Amino acid sequence: MLNVALVGFGYWGPNLARNFSSLPGCKLAYICEPREVRAQEAALLYPQAKVTPDYQKLLQDPEVGAILIATPVSSHYDLTKRALLAGKDVLVEKPLVADVAQGKELVDLADEKERIMAVDHTFLFTGAVMKMKELVEAGELGDLLYFDSVRINLGLFQPDVNVIYDLAPHDISILTHLYPQEPVAVQAMGARHPKHRQEHHAYLHLDYSGAFMAHLHLSWLAPVKVRRTLLGGSQKMMVYDDLEGSEKIKVYDKGVTITNGDLNSVYQVQVDYRTGDMLAPRIKHSEALRTEAEHFLDCVARRSRPLADGREGLRVVRILQASRISMQEEGRKVYLEELD
Amino acid sequence: MLNVALVGFGYWGPNLARNFSSLPGCKLAYICEPREVRAQEAALLYPQAKVTPDYQKLLQDPEVGAILIATPVSSHYDLTKRALLAGKDVLVEKPLVADVAQGKELVDLADEKERIMAVDHTFLFTGAVMKMKELVEAGELGDLLYFDSVRINLGLFQPDVNVIYDLAPHDISILTHLYPQEPVAVQAMGARHPKHRQEHHAYLHLDYSGAFMAHLHLSWLAPVKVRRTLLGGSQKMMVYDDLEGSEKIKVYDKGVTITNGDLNSVYQVQVDYRTGDMLAPRIKHSEALRTEAEHFLDCVARRSRPLADGREGLRVVRILQASRISMQEEGRKVYLEELD
Amino acid sequence: MLNVALVGFGYWGPNLARNFSSLPGCKLAYICEPREVRAQEAALLYPQAKVTPDYQKLLQDPEVGAILIATPVSSHYDLTKRALLAGKDVLVEKPLVADVAQGKELVDLADEKERIMAVDHTFLFTGAVMKMKELVEAGELGDLLYFDSVRINLGLFQPDVNVIYDLAPHDISILTHLYPQEPVAVQAMGARHPKHRQEHHAYLHLDYSGAFMAHLHLSWLAPVKVRRTLLGGSQKMMVYDDLEGSEKIKVYDKGVTITNGDLNSVYQVQVDYRTGDMLAPRIKHSEALRTEAEHFLDCVARRSRPLADGREGLRVVRILQASRISMQEEGRKVYLEELD
Amino acid sequence: MLNVALVGFGYWGPNLARNFSSLPGCKLAYICEPREVRAQEAALLYPQAKVTPDYQKLLQDPEVGAILIATPVSSHYDLTKRALLAGKDVLVEKPLVADVAQGKELVDLADEKERIMAVDHTFLFTGAVMKMKELVEAGELGDLLYFDSVRINLGLFQPDVNVIYDLAPHDISILTHLYPQEPVAVQAMGARHPKHRQEHHAYLHLDYSGAFMAHLHLSWLAPVKVRRTLLGGSQKMMVYDDLEGSEKIKVYDKGVTITNGDLNSVYQVQVDYRTGDMLAPRIKHSEALRTEAEHFLDCVARRSRPLADGREGLRVVRILQASRISMQEEGRKVYLEELD
Repeated sequence: MLNVALVGFGYWGPNLARNFSSLPGCKLAYICEPREVRAQEAALLYPQAKVTPDYQKLLQDPEVGAILIATPVSSHYDLTKRALLAGKDVLVEKPLVADVAQGKELVDLADEKERIMAVDHTFLFTGAVMKMKELVEAGELGDLLYFDSVRINLGLFQPDVNVIYDLAPHDISILTHLYPQEPVAVQAMGARHPKHRQEHHAYLHLDYSGAFMAHLHLSWLAPVKVRRTLLGGSQKMMVYDDLEGSEKIKVYDKGVTITNGDLNSVYQVQVDYRTGDMLAPRIKHSEALRTEAEHFLDCVARRSRPLADGREGLRVVRILQASRISMQEEGRKVYLEELD
Repeated sequence: MLNVALVGFGYWGPNLARNFSSLPGCKLAYICEPREVRAQEAALLYPQAKVTPDYQKLLQDPEVGAILIATPVSSHYDLTKRALLAGKDVLVEKPLVADVAQGKELVDLADEKERIMAVDHTFLFTGAVMKMKELVEAGELGDLLYFDSVRINLGLFQPDVNVIYDLAPHDISILTHLYPQEPVAVQAMGARHPKHRQEHHAYLHLDYSGAFMAHLHLSWLAPVKVRRTLLGGSQKMMVYDDLEGSEKIKVYDKGVTITNGDLNSVYQVQVDYRTGDMLAPRIKHSEALRTEAEHFLDCVARRSRPLADGREGLRVVRILQASRISMQEEGRKVYLEELD
Repeated sequence: MLNVALVGFGYWGPNLARNFSSLPGCKLAYICEPREVRAQEAALLYPQAKVTPDYQKLLQDPEVGAILIATPVSSHYDLTKRALLAGKDVLVEKPLVADVAQGKELVDLADEKERIMAVDHTFLFTGAVMKMKELVEAGELGDLLYFDSVRINLGLFQPDVNVIYDLAPHDISILTHLYPQEPVAVQAMGARHPKHRQEHHAYLHLDYSGAFMAHLHLSWLAPVKVRRTLLGGSQKMMVYDDLEGSEKIKVYDKGVTITNGDLNSVYQVQVDYRTGDMLAPRIKHSEALRTEAEHFLDCVARRSRPLADGREGLRVVRILQASRISMQEEGRKVYLEELD
Repeated sequence: MLNVALVGFGYWGPNLARNFSSLPGCKLAYICEPREVRAQEAALLYPQAKVTPDYQKLLQDPEVGAILIATPVSSHYDLTKRALLAGKDVLVEKPLVADVAQGKELVDLADEKERIMAVDHTFLFTGAVMKMKELVEAGELGDLLYFDSVRINLGLFQPDVNVIYDLAPHDISILTHLYPQEPVAVQAMGARHPKHRQEHHAYLHLDYSGAFMAHLHLSWLAPVKVRRTLLGGSQKMMVYDDLEGSEKIKVYDKGVTITNGDLNSVYQVQVDYRTGDMLAPRIKHSEALRTEAEHFLDCVARRSRPLADGREGLRVVRILQASRISMQEEGRKVYLEELD
């Protein structure tokens, strides 16, 4: 039986509470929440948990095995560090931290303390992304050629972060999950409303050392809602449309075969086009967060590496940080090695 | 009655022949085509026209008022220049020329000779783009904020030009038609197949001096066919989906109003969201090329400026040329003034 | 302040409880539920309400003004009759009753006792149907010509009723709301799985005295989910697609004008086709059941006729009963007057 | 080398001429067309063919092996009969004839004379329908349970036939091809515009001796264009959407398994639902009429039964005739045996 303690009962915390309180092999022992009203609500819904404004209590209780952190990003570094130092395993809300240097420190600390540190990249646990990963791993698509995602809508303008920080973490976590190699460089371009400080419409372009390329389009100010990712491979290509009811993933047996390709001579290139069947494989419909919670418990029990561990979380932070620099410098190509 | 002479009976020439031979007030007097087989075909279909391999004959005939040029881009400069010098009006296939300096020379020459020089930007004469222009002109969208277009499919790999040169002229001509201000800078990123010389998947990003921004996605290697443009405005937003049967244009009464926007203070920003009706206005279904041909005849008769004149054609050439430089320099931001 | 008492805390009852317990001007005084486990749950969630297995208690309490009946259809007649006799206003789950004669009796009794009797036709209070009604009333569509609805999916096979009884009440209530005239005759055809007693795939056809016609397609065994209604008018036509996120209603300015129509002579008929704009008007997104609950409270307070009163409920029952006879007699045209 | 002679150069004849004139192993020897203008056009386009208003000439020429009949339905019986009596093979436009008795006579005559008689059910030769037939034959769907098709649009009102005669032959020919058993009875319901003689919006329902059922919806007065067929099977289900670009056929691995079904007892029925992958198999994109023409030539050469022979054509005529009677008698169930 693992005792877990939740910090933060705001927007996402209640979802963690609901899932972790109902999983077998796990007990929600504490909810730490400084805001009076939210704390009362937590107490009402989870009478079995101790509700407290004092984070130290959670850390001092030797019965608590893992801390779930669902607070604003700016507090992640401090809370996570203290939890690791207290010998707890941790599940942190995404993004892991706001700053690459802090992220590295946490990753090293978790290694040193031999603690499980997972980042809450919920999308990786959706049926759709699990199926994509499975197909990519099985080599169904051949070599990956590109990742192109669009996540746009008429959405809530955030006052303190731009649309890339708000929406792209989802897509970047999916991208790094499907194509783990780190990009070489990042370019970010965006538009701000004349009266607003943050870009509401933006593009993020990622260059890699090989032929692969990734591109993201994010917007809070679009007339239609689109959540679609194209994944091109040398053998097959895939479309992931998160708004589709039951056919979220479509695998197209389409592509080109280029033979006699000689880059010095145009005339010998022979391009053959293939168009075959399209398959929409069945997707599991279970709640992603529940699957993720089970996975976290399992990692804690077996002391095994979580799917989205600190290194994975750090990858996303690096790309975000490079995008911020590029945006400030008006689309300059920012090399990831600049961050080191 | 205007006598027109066509040069080039390859892919596009037959469409020009079909339209100009059937318009009232116009006679297709010549077809110039050096390739024997194509020339015979032209003669069979248009017995009323003189078919010749000799371009000079067209220029020397004082009865010929206008020349229609439907040959490869590399020949546009020479053929157009000679036609203008011979005192003919001209309709040139897009893009006008491959090189900015040549384009400027042609524009100046047409001015000097007081000749009509039109560029065949066919898309401007589709019912959909005419309706978009009408709505933008009427101020329906308010201030334009962005243009985002996607034109992807499993398409023919060209051996000698990349996917931007192949597909983007359509979108750039629509963009410059709807938003005539010249961009300040261009960035182009793309991926090549390891065995192919030309980028098959590319993005083109255009920065402007104000809040406006444009972005194009072009691909020959996509699993699905998409031809969709978003046009965001401060009042309304528009979607143009060229694959829709009858609802190609959708106007969304959606947007945000930002009040008390003070860039120095987050807290005073107030964002109000509007979601109203969506209107898909009726679109004319006549053939775009026929409408364009009628417009050209009308401009010739009245000596008036064509919708897509040489200056418009030059604008597109400038953006293409900047994109080529940026692509070669791996996404560097190329300022349009560098071309001057 | 109106005290309401709910009977039945099964599938739908909790939704009524949630809405009526949170409306201003209303108090949920009783929940009547004989099943022990459900009763305990009700008590936990609504500590302010008295939970009892004894329906008589609700009727005897003079403080209770209205009874909400959310029990199986077979009990509606008895429970509603007793409520009316006790002088209570009533909101009954749909369908009102299983039998036309019982329905008539209840309608007469409500009249005699001057009680409000409403039937829970929730769909009438959706933003989409309210907008359709508004447009029809305003004469936007001209004369109504047909109603065609499709409600199919891979759905739960019911053991005791066929797919018409399971799904059609929604569409019939919308139909009678939009086109109040009673049909003259009904035909029902369906297919049963060889091993199942109830039709899983069925069509319901309704003939009217004029040119109007209605047709419904219902299925539990379809490969795709469709919930779409076409409403044809002499001026405009409408599509209601309940699966669309934001454009549930589309109004097409399309139609024909037939002039010089002389039924004795083919040659004088002149048909003109119109194709104009399409408009997707903004739809309200509030919860339908909440709007309905507010409407019921308002009718009780003002003693006014509910939108879906007993007569409306009876209309639906008549069509269902005729469909059952027609299905048993293999698609025979059953005239509604046969039911009297 | 087969010499074929075409009768009728109106709407469909030119398509036959184009295909048969360009097929290897075949020569278009005659075009019979009484209307002067159409005849001239035919002569211009097909200088190799003799153009004549005299049908007798075609029949008397011993070099002519097959007659292609593309004239109005009312002339099919006479022209086909004379062709068969003259010893020619025949390809007749659909529907074969307007009357069942005439159809039978032609079928018998073709048998007696041992002539090939094919009916031009072009849809059977589309890649989509060929794929459907292949999958049904292979048993992929299990036992067929229903066929449901919708073919609606804002279409041309015909003055002399109703919408069923205009549009349903396509769907009925597909239906009888996929499910060859003859229906037991037919019901047709429709609505006429008050000023028009012909039903513009209609439903056709077909009952069979087993569990199978078919239903067609046809309309000239719909706000949207739909051309969609559902084919339900005990193992899988299929959707055929003719408006889809490349995914016209979708096969859903969905269905129910009913065990312990005892029609006398509700309680023993156990329904299991399956939801698996969806597959959109690749469809051939060749022109259907060309494939059909090749098939006809092949049947003539090998003296083999055409896919759509006279019996197949007669089946469609029987269903159409029964629908006409049912429509006249306001939806009465017309048994096919009444036609004998």
